Amino acid sequence: MVRIVIFGQGLVATHFAIGLERLKNGEIPDYGVPLSNKIPIKYEELEIVGSYDVDTKKIGKTIYDVAKEVFGDTNIPRQLRDVYVRKGIHLDSMKGLPFKAEGLEEQKGLLNAINDLVDEWKSLKPDVFVNVITTEPANKLNTIENIENALINQKLSASQAYAYAVAKYSKETKSSVFINAIPTPIANDPGFVELYKESKAIVLGDDGATGATPLTADLLEHLAERNRKVLEIAQFNIGGNTDFLALDIPERNFMKKKTKSSIVEDILGYNVPNYIKPTGYLPPLGDKKFVAMIIEYISFNNFKDELYIIARINDSPALAGQLVDLARLAKIALDREEYGTIYPINAFYMKNPGPKEGKSIAKTKAYDKLLQWLGIKHGN
Amino acid sequence: MVRIVIFGQGLVATHFAIGLERLKNGEIPDYGVPLSNKIPIKYEELEIVGSYDVDTKKIGKTIYDVAKEVFGDTNIPRQLRDVYVRKGIHLDSMKGLPFKAEGLEEQKGLLNAINDLVDEWKSLKPDVFVNVITTEPANKLNTIENIENALINQKLSASQAYAYAVAKYSKETKSSVFINAIPTPIANDPGFVELYKESKAIVLGDDGATGATPLTADLLEHLAERNRKVLEIAQFNIGGNTDFLALDIPERNFMKKKTKSSIVEDILGYNVPNYIKPTGYLPPLGDKKFVAMIIEYISFNNFKDELYIIARINDSPALAGQLVDLARLAKIALDREEYGTIYPINAFYMKNPGPKEGKSIAKTKAYDKLLQWLGIKHGN
Amino acid sequence: MVRIVIFGQGLVATHFAIGLERLKNGEIPDYGVPLSNKIPIKYEELEIVGSYDVDTKKIGKTIYDVAKEVFGDTNIPRQLRDVYVRKGIHLDSMKGLPFKAEGLEEQKGLLNAINDLVDEWKSLKPDVFVNVITTEPANKLNTIENIENALINQKLSASQAYAYAVAKYSKETKSSVFINAIPTPIANDPGFVELYKESKAIVLGDDGATGATPLTADLLEHLAERNRKVLEIAQFNIGGNTDFLALDIPERNFMKKKTKSSIVEDILGYNVPNYIKPTGYLPPLGDKKFVAMIIEYISFNNFKDELYIIARINDSPALAGQLVDLARLAKIALDREEYGTIYPINAFYMKNPGPKEGKSIAKTKAYDKLLQWLGIKHGN
Amino acid sequence: MVRIVIFGQGLVATHFAIGLERLKNGEIPDYGVPLSNKIPIKYEELEIVGSYDVDTKKIGKTIYDVAKEVFGDTNIPRQLRDVYVRKGIHLDSMKGLPFKAEGLEEQKGLLNAINDLVDEWKSLKPDVFVNVITTEPANKLNTIENIENALINQKLSASQAYAYAVAKYSKETKSSVFINAIPTPIANDPGFVELYKESKAIVLGDDGATGATPLTADLLEHLAERNRKVLEIAQFNIGGNTDFLALDIPERNFMKKKTKSSIVEDILGYNVPNYIKPTGYLPPLGDKKFVAMIIEYISFNNFKDELYIIARINDSPALAGQLVDLARLAKIALDREEYGTIYPINAFYMKNPGPKEGKSIAKTKAYDKLLQWLGIKHGN
Repeated sequence: MVRIVIFGQGLVATHFAIGLERLKNGEIPDYGVPLSNKIPIKYEELEIVGSYDVDTKKIGKTIYDVAKEVFGDTNIPRQLRDVYVRKGIHLDSMKGLPFKAEGLEEQKGLLNAINDLVDEWKSLKPDVFVNVITTEPANKLNTIENIENALINQKLSASQAYAYAVAKYSKETKSSVFINAIPTPIANDPGFVELYKESKAIVLGDDGATGATPLTADLLEHLAERNRKVLEIAQFNIGGNTDFLALDIPERNFMKKKTKSSIVEDILGYNVPNYIKPTGYLPPLGDKKFVAMIIEYISFNNFKDELYIIARINDSPALAGQLVDLARLAKIALDREEYGTIYPINAFYMKNPGPKEGKSIAKTKAYDKLLQWLGIKHGN
Repeated sequence: MVRIVIFGQGLVATHFAIGLERLKNGEIPDYGVPLSNKIPIKYEELEIVGSYDVDTKKIGKTIYDVAKEVFGDTNIPRQLRDVYVRKGIHLDSMKGLPFKAEGLEEQKGLLNAINDLVDEWKSLKPDVFVNVITTEPANKLNTIENIENALINQKLSASQAYAYAVAKYSKETKSSVFINAIPTPIANDPGFVELYKESKAIVLGDDGATGATPLTADLLEHLAERNRKVLEIAQFNIGGNTDFLALDIPERNFMKKKTKSSIVEDILGYNVPNYIKPTGYLPPLGDKKFVAMIIEYISFNNFKDELYIIARINDSPALAGQLVDLARLAKIALDREEYGTIYPINAFYMKNPGPKEGKSIAKTKAYDKLLQWLGIKHGN
Repeated sequence: MVRIVIFGQGLVATHFAIGLERLKNGEIPDYGVPLSNKIPIKYEELEIVGSYDVDTKKIGKTIYDVAKEVFGDTNIPRQLRDVYVRKGIHLDSMKGLPFKAEGLEEQKGLLNAINDLVDEWKSLKPDVFVNVITTEPANKLNTIENIENALINQKLSASQAYAYAVAKYSKETKSSVFINAIPTPIANDPGFVELYKESKAIVLGDDGATGATPLTADLLEHLAERNRKVLEIAQFNIGGNTDFLALDIPERNFMKKKTKSSIVEDILGYNVPNYIKPTGYLPPLGDKKFVAMIIEYISFNNFKDELYIIARINDSPALAGQLVDLARLAKIALDREEYGTIYPINAFYMKNPGPKEGKSIAKTKAYDKLLQWLGIKHGN
Repeated sequence: MVRIVIFGQGLVATHFAIGLERLKNGEIPDYGVPLSNKIPIKYEELEIVGSYDVDTKKIGKTIYDVAKEVFGDTNIPRQLRDVYVRKGIHLDSMKGLPFKAEGLEEQKGLLNAINDLVDEWKSLKPDVFVNVITTEPANKLNTIENIENALINQKLSASQAYAYAVAKYSKETKSSVFINAIPTPIANDPGFVELYKESKAIVLGDDGATGATPLTADLLEHLAERNRKVLEIAQFNIGGNTDFLALDIPERNFMKKKTKSSIVEDILGYNVPNYIKPTGYLPPLGDKKFVAMIIEYISFNNFKDELYIIARINDSPALAGQLVDLARLAKIALDREEYGTIYPINAFYMKNPGPKEGKSIAKTKAYDKLLQWLGIKHGN
């Protein structure tokens, strides 16, 4: 069994929980799970054993109840009635958002909060932790020393605190994996990677690659392989879920813009004027975001072509499907004892693949590297 | 030097001729030439030594004069004043189109016409023949015997007749390469591949992969690598150049539909209802075609996403840029004496890569195979 | 009360029936009913009293049962259990389509079939007949004499036969209205208009204006009012409902192309190269069609702008909503005794507004004419 | 003759000057001039007699020279060699932009600067002033008293100062028209309208309606006339000209957002969540902006449709073409002595039509009002 703990019981985590149980119940096909049955870990082996959040409306409820409020009463798998949402670490990660939030650290301090979590996990025995809290502002800490200082001064972000707790748990109890699906640099932070190596733990990250960014990466590769000169890229994103609401706050938006626009130069090999960032929050769109893109390029004989792309993407299910793979790959990586971070996994599943030196490459090239890491031959 | 002969002095050939000379003159960057300076054959080594057409308005003119009528007096390289358009083989390849056409075979019969061409080439000494005549209806012949029977009965298409002549020239005089950039099956015809092997010649083809089809191929691969279930694809193409005019004639359109829609199942591994074919002819669009596409797919947890793509593509320059590569790759293949056809080249540059058994694969995968064939490492 | 009979119990009629009953039940808002509560006829006054079809799978069933097969068991109003689908007139209107069809005229001949219908209506007492059978090939007959000859020789189309029957019923029993929502020229046929005047009947038509055509009309007006010179228009339509299947048959497609492309010159005042017609049939799209459009135009100082439009439109509900208005307007017209056809209604609701002399105008201008006919002042 | 003075010799004014002279020379058709030859003022009657700017690189040059730097040496009409760009009023209107700016008021104070301008105009004798300076932050002043206080305290914006000078000139010398094509509220400021009435002057404004906003207005009217319920609108605009650069500064962007989003509720009659504002600055796009839009709405029977629009619009020529009309309409208005502001003109040509009470209406309805004001019958 692969025992999973969730940080942040938002839409992504809820889609992950519902989708996973439906998969196990045979109620849905496994579309959107990239590796499907290409790897030997079965969906039945995955089990969600715990969940943490700081929204006071969620704490104490079951995942079933949280899901019901979003999706109505139909089709929520009954298994989710058994998993309760516990109070997690806040550290102002929800500041400025219209939710009432409370964190474990508020009464007992951060150090004690982390110790309590690690103790709790000693009985829960998780193998994999999935971090899908709302995008938060955060900076790299670069060394273990800086991490520990920040911990003492309560200067960590919520994700960094969770990541630290997972390392501590791995060191003290059982090797485990922290999957960081949000922009906070963890797998890209040399300090955390070092800490994880020391702790016999694995961090996968950062920032789950779904939506328009991986598509853009592959389109740019397509153009690069034809030696077309890209003149500019504009990519608008607008949606109505909590993440878009959060990204309306400039310093959170900046976290996203950084990981999104870095791919352009990495893939093309030259700098291109671009506008790639979450653009706005429009509630009626809900979780199905609207993406509009323009790419202009120079073709042979100096002619200019134009490419326009419009996409309507269900934001949360896309990431949730990839988490099903990541949890399974985490198990494989644990079995192989590849501690630290694993670029061939990150390069495909993450917008900003760690470690720090890890370049953004086209996803289709990353896919080949992933299969190679797995020892699988591509169909073609 | 690589000595090149053109069949069909239409827009593609004219862009190829103009662009190539401008490249040699250092007047334009080499955008749209996929391999750029990654291979050792320089642009200066390419030389157009002959051109054939059946349009009576072109026969006897220089490429310079033909180009001037399309592009006006500016910027046509002077070198093109030295190459005359000669009368080629017609065999009704222009039937139904509003051009007055005449073929060499009309007075002397096809066999004599082919012999005359081969004789002419003995002095021109071409290494590479580029076939870019207008899309014509044609069927596979499958065996050398069938080809020879069809030749005697004048049942070949113009491309097939040219291909036969090139094989004959290769056998009698000098190994050479036939680059078939139109849908007529030559590299996909086991008869022709066999004939080319016997004649120590090389055929590359079929149907140059530019426009929306290679983009669709890479998009489908992108979806396949995420295990998204594609529900349907519609891809509309409309343009105002001669090829769109020709494709308005049903049996010509059918030639194109075949190569275009075969990629879907090859890449996805399952059949998808699709509508992929040239859709219409609209003169004011000229050579800059309008492509509109919808792809719907199922993502995780049974949610449906939609992708809409609009492209404005200069049709002829895109193919012309790839011909610059193909002519150079032809030279490398000749030096390696790889007679018959060469899948790793065809897979990237062609919509319907020969030989017959050659599957359509995503272009980004084909690109890796091409680099591998060349012994080049991918940048990433 | 306004008593309504339906010809053709397909998707449009089913949406009309369901939507109307839901409106009466207060279950849905009246979005998509253009005049909403601006006219004094209430939805509660509309009653469907009969329905005719030739599909043997539908004949004898209730509208409730027909609806259930399309929409499943949920939310079909119970009132529809009371209306049975009767066998109508076929006259090969379904020829070539994959449905088993049977017509009243097959056993007893067309004249007797029409007489039977008229007799049936003497007891049903309908005020309004809605023609929404599948697009059929048909030509104008131009005079009452021609209509009567075609009747005797069974050369009428199904719509023409229905239209004739309604005129006869109007003359013999009670003035009524024939709403022709398909391309067959009835309101544009001077013969039928004359026949209706004589019969104290009203015909509204032809070809319900929903989807991309009215949008295009208003866009063209927008450009015309800025004196922008339109260079070309391409409008692709693809869908998966029976109408798209029918329009895949060339002579049916031609019926649609005619009404669709006539608007361009009518509105702009000059001819523009255009490609406007149903483009294909793609089953997974179902009733939600995909429309893609390009319009290029010259702006001031000879600059060229481009407009691209993508629309996803639920085809049948759009027309169904307009039928709710048309049935109510029919009642108003009957009360006013405006026999023949009524351009101010047709101009807004129809793609090809009768009478024959009636020009296609922008829908927004037609809307003003409609309000004027109704004696209503525009909000602005 | 209609003597014209320009404020702000940017791209719009340069397109206006070039286009107007070309029109007079018969070098271009009058596409993009909405009223074309429907009004009796000929293009030959329009003459640019003066121009003002604050960019030190432009002051002292001829319009010809300014144009040459943008468009190169070709096709700039020679007549533009006679008009020099003079130093205008700055008042920090260019603050924060990467241009060196200088204003007349800097040395002599604002009151003297205005007096000098008015004196200068006594000899230039302009009839029409066109304000196309870069979008500036500004607030309504509401009363003549406030305007005069702001003038004394130098708290006017540049446009307000120009508008004041034009009123003074009209009072003292000759009735004239101030055409305010930028967002600063002048025609919407009751203080200025009162001042103009008193001064026997006319102000037309505010904010020239080109680009996506008038198109959106007409699309919304199209939906409203079908009683479709709009769920949300997102409209992205990105371009590479100075105006987009200016609009990247939040308080300038806010000026635009205000006029752009007010149309939604005015036309639909209810509030719709929307995101309509200039979105970004991307230099390679130059003056040809990229607009992407989504509109979702509820159709009949509660079905949801989607509309996506992509436009590539040459920003400056579009407004320049409308200025040709506005200058001519100004002359007609002067002849009619309709002092103050004129809603039937503003409603069609302006995003935020004055006076303050003037609602935004669909442009196609405004067009009818304009024709009515002119005494012209619509073609249809």
